[in-house]
Amino acid sequence: MLRTYTLRSSGLRRAFSTSARRADRAIVYSKNGEPPSVLRAVSYPPLDAPRSGTINVKYILSPINPADINVIEGLYPAKPSPDANLQSLTNESLFVGGNEGLAQVTSVGSGVDGLSEGDWVVPIAPQSGTWVTSRNLSPADVVSVPRADGLSEAAAAMLTVNPPTAYNMLHDFVNLKPGDWVVQNGANSAVGQLVAQIACKEGWRTINFVRNREDFGALEEEMKSLGADAVFTYDDLADKGLREKVKETTGGKPISLALNCVSGPVTSNMARYLGAKPPTKPHLVSYGAMSKQPLSLPTSLFIFKDLVSCGFWQSRWYKTHSKEEKEELIRKVATMGLKVPKHEIVEVGGEGASDEAVSKQLTEVVRRVVEGKTGGKKVLLKVA
Amino acid sequence: MLRTYTLRSSGLRRAFSTSARRADRAIVYSKNGEPPSVLRAVSYPPLDAPRSGTINVKYILSPINPADINVIEGLYPAKPSPDANLQSLTNESLFVGGNEGLAQVTSVGSGVDGLSEGDWVVPIAPQSGTWVTSRNLSPADVVSVPRADGLSEAAAAMLTVNPPTAYNMLHDFVNLKPGDWVVQNGANSAVGQLVAQIACKEGWRTINFVRNREDFGALEEEMKSLGADAVFTYDDLADKGLREKVKETTGGKPISLALNCVSGPVTSNMARYLGAKPPTKPHLVSYGAMSKQPLSLPTSLFIFKDLVSCGFWQSRWYKTHSKEEKEELIRKVATMGLKVPKHEIVEVGGEGASDEAVSKQLTEVVRRVVEGKTGGKKVLLKVA
Repeated sequence: MLRTYTLRSSGLRRAFSTSARRADRAIVYSKNGEPPSVLRAVSYPPLDAPRSGTINVKYILSPINPADINVIEGLYPAKPSPDANLQSLTNESLFVGGNEGLAQVTSVGSGVDGLSEGDWVVPIAPQSGTWVTSRNLSPADVVSVPRADGLSEAAAAMLTVNPPTAYNMLHDFVNLKPGDWVVQNGANSAVGQLVAQIACKEGWRTINFVRNREDFGALEEEMKSLGADAVFTYDDLADKGLREKVKETTGGKPISLALNCVSGPVTSNMARYLGAKPPTKPHLVSYGAMSKQPLSLPTSLFIFKDLVSCGFWQSRWYKTHSKEEKEELIRKVATMGLKVPKHEIVEVGGEGASDEAVSKQLTEVVRRVVEGKTGGKKVLLKVA
Repeated sequence: MLRTYTLRSSGLRRAFSTSARRADRAIVYSKNGEPPSVLRAVSYPPLDAPRSGTINVKYILSPINPADINVIEGLYPAKPSPDANLQSLTNESLFVGGNEGLAQVTSVGSGVDGLSEGDWVVPIAPQSGTWVTSRNLSPADVVSVPRADGLSEAAAAMLTVNPPTAYNMLHDFVNLKPGDWVVQNGANSAVGQLVAQIACKEGWRTINFVRNREDFGALEEEMKSLGADAVFTYDDLADKGLREKVKETTGGKPISLALNCVSGPVTSNMARYLGAKPPTKPHLVSYGAMSKQPLSLPTSLFIFKDLVSCGFWQSRWYKTHSKEEKEELIRKVATMGLKVPKHEIVEVGGEGASDEAVSKQLTEVVRRVVEGKTGGKKVLLKVA
C-alpha cells in the first residue's frame, strides 16, 4: 500500500511516498502572530531509526501553556530554533509549538546509556517543540521520569515547568525552617497551588492572596484542602486592618519569603509584610506579572529592611544546572504526590485526517485557550 | 577657683561645682521635631577617669549628616538611646545628636588593650551621639584610625558612613573584574563621588548620571578628575539615543552593577542598562531615594534578566560584622587617598559661653544645613 504525504509550505509543495507507514504530525508556525492565525498542522514521514547517540520519542501529552502563546506571538524572550527535520523536508523555516510534554522513548540509538524503549522522558531543552507526534532527540535534552508512584500521564506531562518553579522558588532563595511562613499572590494559579502544596509537605506555612470573587469561600476551602494555612483577598491586602489578622495568623513570626506573579499595587502591599532576622534577607521572588503593571516598591524596604527583590525563570534554571541536578529535581517533584491540575485532553489529528482538518481542530482549541474559555482547565494536546 | 555648672532640664535644675575644670558640652534634644526647634546645648562636668574596660574620648570633629536630621525629626528607622550620663545628671531623657565623628582617646581604663592616649578613633555603634565634647565609651564601640598617610582630621571625621558605603556597595554584591563597568545616579552626591574615586582606584569603570544643570560641563570635568569615565544627565537617560552612546562607551561590555540614591523613573531607566552573563546576576543596589518616589521596575527584568534589586545600609553592615572586619574596612578607606569632601568647620561653644548662646549658634548652623544653604559643603561641628 502506498500513501502520499503532502508537506505544505508558503513557497513549496513536496510530495513523497512511503509504504505501510502512517504520517506523523507537527503543529507549526512560520512567523510570529496571533496563534489561531499562524498555527497549522504539517504531516511528515515517520522518523528514521535514531542515529548513534540519539533517541526517538513519541509524545504522549503536551500542554498548551500561557508562555507557549507568548512565544508564538513573539512576545517571549526565549525563541525556538526552526525545526531541522521539517526544514530539510520543506525547505521552509518552521517552528514547532510547545515547550513542555511527556514523551515515551520508542527507539534508542547506539551508544546511548541509561535510556530504554518505553521509558518516560520530559524535554528540558528550552522551546524544543513538543506539539508533535514524534521527535529525534539528544539524550542530553531529556530527563527520564520515574514511572512508579502512580504518576499519571497528565501529571507527568505538566512536570517540567510549574512544579519545578514552585519547588525552586521555595528552596533556592531563603533557608526556610519548619514552621516558617511564606506569602504569595496569584495563589490559585497553577504555580500558586503547587506552592501551597509543596510548602505544606515541607512543613512550611503559607498565606495566600487571591483576587476577590463571589465564590471566595469555595476557593478558600479548595486552597486549604491543598495545604494553604490562610487565604485572603487583594482587597484585604489594601486594608490596614489585615496587619493584625496576619500577626494573629503567624503569631508574629517574620515572613521572609514572598512569591509574586501579579506585580502592581497588590505586590507593593504584600512586600510590606516581609521581614527577617539578619543575616536572613527577606526575599520577594517574582515569576509573573499578571496585572501587567510594574513592580513598585518603597526604597526604604531595600535599605532598612534589607529586602531583596529578584526573579525566577525555570528556563534559566535548566540552562545553568547540570544533568544530574535536573534529574534530581524532576525525580523530586514527580514523587511528591502533587495533585494533578485540572485539565482536559484534546486529541488532534489521527490517521486519515488531512492537515487542513487538523489545523482547523487546532485553531479552535488554541482560540479557546487564548480567550480563557477552558473553564480553568489546562489543555493537554495529543498530536496524532 | 570654683565654677558652677548648671544643668538645664524641663523639670529639674541641678548645680554642682568643681575646681579648675571647664565644662564640656553636648548638643541634645528631648523629643523629636524640627532640628532648629528641638536642639539645644547642655553643659556637663568633665568626665571622671574611665572605669575599668572603658575609655574616655574627646571629639575633634563631628559631621552633620542628612540622616542626623532625619533621626532628630523621628523619621529615621534607627533611634538613639537616651544618654545615660546626662540622664543621671539631669534626671531627663536627653538624646545626643550625631552618628559620625573623629575622637581622640584622652584616657584609657584598666584592662583595655590596643588603645592608647592620643589615638584617633571613630564610633561604629549606631547613633552613639557625636555632637559632644567628650564621652566615656566601650572600646567595642570604636575603631581606631591610622594616623599616618596624611589623613586630615576632617577626612577622618567623615570616614565611617560615606566611604564604607561606597566601598561596600562596590565590593559586596557583584564580583567585579578589572575593566568592568558600574552605573550610578546621584553621582555627584558625597557617596557618588566616592564611588567614582574608589571604582577608579580598583580598576573598574563608571558611568555617572547627574541632574541637568547649567554648569554641566564643569561638573563633568570635576567628576572625571575624580576618576569617572563618563557623565550623563537624567535627561540623557530618558532618551533612547543614549543606548548607542553607552554601547560605544563600554564597548558593549555588560554592566552588572548599578548604584541608586534617587529612585523614581530615573532609576527605572537606569536599570534597563543592566545585564550580566550567568551565573553573575546584575544588581541594582539602593542606598537612598532623593526623588522621594518609589523604585518601580518592569517584572520582566527580574524574571528574564535575573535582576536583583537590593539595598545597602552601612549601619546594618556595622551591626552584622565583627570588630576585626570593621577595623579592616576603616583601615582600607582611611588609606586609599580619597579626596576630602568640601566642608566647613563650625566651632560652637568654648569657655565662658552660656548654653543659651551655644544653642543659638547651633540653631543657626543647623538651619543652614536643613535649608541646604551650606554651598554644598558638609558642616563639621566642633563642640566645646
